[in-house]
Amino acid sequence: MPRLVDHEVRRRQVTDAVRRVICAGGLESVTFQTVAAEAGFSVRLVQYYFGTKKEFLLATHRSVMDDAGARFMKRWSELGTDPTPREALRAVLTELLPLDEPRREEVLILGAFGWAAITGQGITAEETFAAPRALATLVADQLIRARRDAESRSVAVELDADLVLMAVGGLAQGMLQGYSTRHSAEQLIEHLLDRVLQ
Amino acid sequence: MPRLVDHEVRRRQVTDAVRRVICAGGLESVTFQTVAAEAGFSVRLVQYYFGTKKEFLLATHRSVMDDAGARFMKRWSELGTDPTPREALRAVLTELLPLDEPRREEVLILGAFGWAAITGQGITAEETFAAPRALATLVADQLIRARRDAESRSVAVELDADLVLMAVGGLAQGMLQGYSTRHSAEQLIEHLLDRVLQ
Repeated sequence: MPRLVDHEVRRRQVTDAVRRVICAGGLESVTFQTVAAEAGFSVRLVQYYFGTKKEFLLATHRSVMDDAGARFMKRWSELGTDPTPREALRAVLTELLPLDEPRREEVLILGAFGWAAITGQGITAEETFAAPRALATLVADQLIRARRDAESRSVAVELDADLVLMAVGGLAQGMLQGYSTRHSAEQLIEHLLDRVLQ
Repeated sequence: MPRLVDHEVRRRQVTDAVRRVICAGGLESVTFQTVAAEAGFSVRLVQYYFGTKKEFLLATHRSVMDDAGARFMKRWSELGTDPTPREALRAVLTELLPLDEPRREEVLILGAFGWAAITGQGITAEETFAAPRALATLVADQLIRARRDAESRSVAVELDADLVLMAVGGLAQGMLQGYSTRHSAEQLIEHLLDRVLQ
């Protein structure tokens, strides 16, 4: 089905263009015009694939999440068959930090969507909650695994998982702003793991 | 000196207008035109007080920080003469969360400045670092006070202070987005204090 494949490629070219426009000038610079120009398409072609701005923004959000998910699964599979909870958590958390260019773009784009949700532009907040909720569960699972012998199902596990994600979210922001360096971020992740695994 | 006072009032009216414009439509909607319209001034009058957009943005950032600082000092003085480290930290951290409308606006405006710094618009990142650095010192001081009897000057105090601020930064974001409720935020602050004071 060459035509179907073609459609997927075109849609991907559009969402890739949206990403580049966001990274260069923020979500507020995204319009049919700027995206079409960036993709090298006519505005009408973009409109053929995405009827509204909201549609291509949602598709872009989904494509970023899909890429992040794929990278994440690759990292996870590289952990081998029996990683310690600390190894598993370190892998999860460092994948969320802007430690290289793809992850920097990802944090930037998802952050832009987050801000747009707050100010009532772009997609709604609810559409951005699925990933953090899944991550909170994943972190809690590892904490429970680490505490198998102690009180493994206390409310503190959920609170620790939330704490970990809040801290990593704040840290990712701090790195983008240049407040935290790569080195201090890695140090902070180890310290965070010390705190929740002690 | 009635004229000087007048100038201060006018400048404040402009920066208050900038705040309202940011809260309504984000930093990208701030122009001489929108700010003048919001303040009920002519564009020329705004230009008389602030020659460039960067000047009134900096003044607005400063006014938000001044208000936050004043509110913070009031809260601090209400703690009495000998608060426990936990009471002091709770006061500091909850002042940073969007728990009421003034604090919500503050988090929103400072967050907008933070994002603008990241994408290279608005003021630079360096200008937004003074406050978090002062807060990190303040938090570290309280942690040292809490650990007076143990190893009070270990590197972990700095890391704990950074951890606390990153977590509260992430939490403030999460609250704005509607991911964390007021109740879960307060629970998380107590849990964070349990973790760093244990």
